[in-house]
Amino acid sequence: MEHIHGGNITRAVERYNLKEEDIIDFSANINFLGPPPQLLEEIRNNLAKIIHYPEPNSTTLKRKMGQYLDLEEKNLVIGNGAVELIYQLVKVIKPDLALVMAPTFSEYELAVKSCGGRVKYLRLEEEKGFKIDIEEVVANLDRVKIVFLCNPNNPTGTLIKRSELMDLIDYASRKDVFVIIDEAFIDFIDNPGNYTVIDLIVRYSNLFVLRSLTKFYAIPGLRLGYGAGTEELISKMELARDPWSVNFFAQLAGEIVLKDVEYQKETRRRISLEREFLYNSLKKIDGLKPFPPSANYIFIDIGASNFSSIVLAEILARRGILIRDCSSYRGLGENYIRVAVKSREDNCFLLDNLREII
Amino acid sequence: MEHIHGGNITRAVERYNLKEEDIIDFSANINFLGPPPQLLEEIRNNLAKIIHYPEPNSTTLKRKMGQYLDLEEKNLVIGNGAVELIYQLVKVIKPDLALVMAPTFSEYELAVKSCGGRVKYLRLEEEKGFKIDIEEVVANLDRVKIVFLCNPNNPTGTLIKRSELMDLIDYASRKDVFVIIDEAFIDFIDNPGNYTVIDLIVRYSNLFVLRSLTKFYAIPGLRLGYGAGTEELISKMELARDPWSVNFFAQLAGEIVLKDVEYQKETRRRISLEREFLYNSLKKIDGLKPFPPSANYIFIDIGASNFSSIVLAEILARRGILIRDCSSYRGLGENYIRVAVKSREDNCFLLDNLREII
Repeated sequence: MEHIHGGNITRAVERYNLKEEDIIDFSANINFLGPPPQLLEEIRNNLAKIIHYPEPNSTTLKRKMGQYLDLEEKNLVIGNGAVELIYQLVKVIKPDLALVMAPTFSEYELAVKSCGGRVKYLRLEEEKGFKIDIEEVVANLDRVKIVFLCNPNNPTGTLIKRSELMDLIDYASRKDVFVIIDEAFIDFIDNPGNYTVIDLIVRYSNLFVLRSLTKFYAIPGLRLGYGAGTEELISKMELARDPWSVNFFAQLAGEIVLKDVEYQKETRRRISLEREFLYNSLKKIDGLKPFPPSANYIFIDIGASNFSSIVLAEILARRGILIRDCSSYRGLGENYIRVAVKSREDNCFLLDNLREII
Repeated sequence: MEHIHGGNITRAVERYNLKEEDIIDFSANINFLGPPPQLLEEIRNNLAKIIHYPEPNSTTLKRKMGQYLDLEEKNLVIGNGAVELIYQLVKVIKPDLALVMAPTFSEYELAVKSCGGRVKYLRLEEEKGFKIDIEEVVANLDRVKIVFLCNPNNPTGTLIKRSELMDLIDYASRKDVFVIIDEAFIDFIDNPGNYTVIDLIVRYSNLFVLRSLTKFYAIPGLRLGYGAGTEELISKMELARDPWSVNFFAQLAGEIVLKDVEYQKETRRRISLEREFLYNSLKKIDGLKPFPPSANYIFIDIGASNFSSIVLAEILARRGILIRDCSSYRGLGENYIRVAVKSREDNCFLLDNLREII
């Protein structure tokens, strides 16, 4: 298994002989509103500061993030994207055996294997809408040292309720199993309070919650994520890593975006609107079976069309439209794609092209 | 041992109640000319691109770097600063026992310990000018799996000749010992051809060479470094890490700065001039014993003054001058400081203050 993800614009430019400005990228799940305008302005005003090292361990951002989340600084770690933190976490916990869903974000298993651990996969079934069944997770914890759950799950969009997660975390704490909840897309969903468990890290020492600022604030080029867990785990992670991993612009961005409540509201409103529009429109196309979305992406079974995901992605790419062919996800064949929710104009362009092709 | 380094401006601002613009930072070894002007311009023009993920594994920059270095892409890895690569390397090699000089850059031993390895220290002696004796290194390789050498060494500035390194690498290859040469400051020295071994990575499979773009191109806030080694080692490192660790601006910076031959020449000329000036001026201050510098920093024994390095750093900091108190380096007591070579005006300001205090 390799690192395969959406959003590789450079490869698309080279492979399909496209101009970058002609590409509409549905393959990466980035807030289509773009970054808060004030952010670009602030970066422009602070360009000269790249001559200084970033603040080690992002101490200042940690303090502000703590206030924002109502958590203490000592329970937070700031990362060069959430993915860096997945690798750090695994390096510190050194699990012999990890439980990972299939399909889910591929970096969990890659991180575990990079530290010599083995991975047990729990296959999610299409008949059950790819839902993660917590009872089944519990039934599979034997000899497992760490379990990864992505909530909402990537690429399927399914959610696990907070109450169910609490049962799992509680059970796992008695079995000495670490529970990692990746909430990278939770800022996009409706009623996040019913799903997040980030506040519980003060109650359970076996819980670690991951978050990303990359997607919601549309800054994947800068890299910024964070994690919350026990003071003991966090300080082990800080000691075992490059203290400068988060660059200066990312630190600056973190401080700015957290304050922008208007942007956060507007994003949720617009995403919710476009998600419904795109989902309902996709349902009406013969051959496409979209699954109910929760964040800013939609997972689609294209098995009833005449196309494999590889071929469909290729045809669309030649037209300048990048989608996520999901065949590289463990547990999925060539019948699934994932598309980001974008602006009305872009969504319509995708829909028109899909109707024409299928 | 903790991560303690120079260049922590934020801490200085808070601790000494200073304004950021009033601080002159001699504690971080950054090219005082600042980044190539074209670089800031290009970043400004490309700000909007932070909405895209960085290119995974920095493939394009790798290609250009390969042309610049006359090495193949497959032998190169681009890192989020050289420090990220130190951690990646250790993670992949998993050494039981590492040989590390004392004093030297502290992240080698921290990286080894973060992966559960032990460290054997080779004490460099002041009587020998802190020179690294290759015969002594060879005599200490028993049961060692990896040896780290920093060339020029940080903080002492001592150099090891290419011919001596070749003897070591050759001997180590027969004993199955990895040799890591950290050339983070080699771009600053005169006649780098007499010291670098980067071209030898195609000849020795036990050699890995680290370089930094952070210091020479004055972009520590962006983070950018690279490493050269065998295809086998490089591909293991790429698999075991976050594919997006290098942010978009750093990738952009890498492509721009490598082409700027004028800036490279001008930097070497100016640094060489100021290095001589600062070294000769420091020699004339009673109580200070500077060691012959090679890069853009000067290591100083202040034992004959009435100050410990901690106290001297504190007094200077209150005046807005940050220096590197070297007491946190393994093997050094409270008698050593390190200062960066800066502009004539800044150097004179430091000298005036040192004369006044001592």
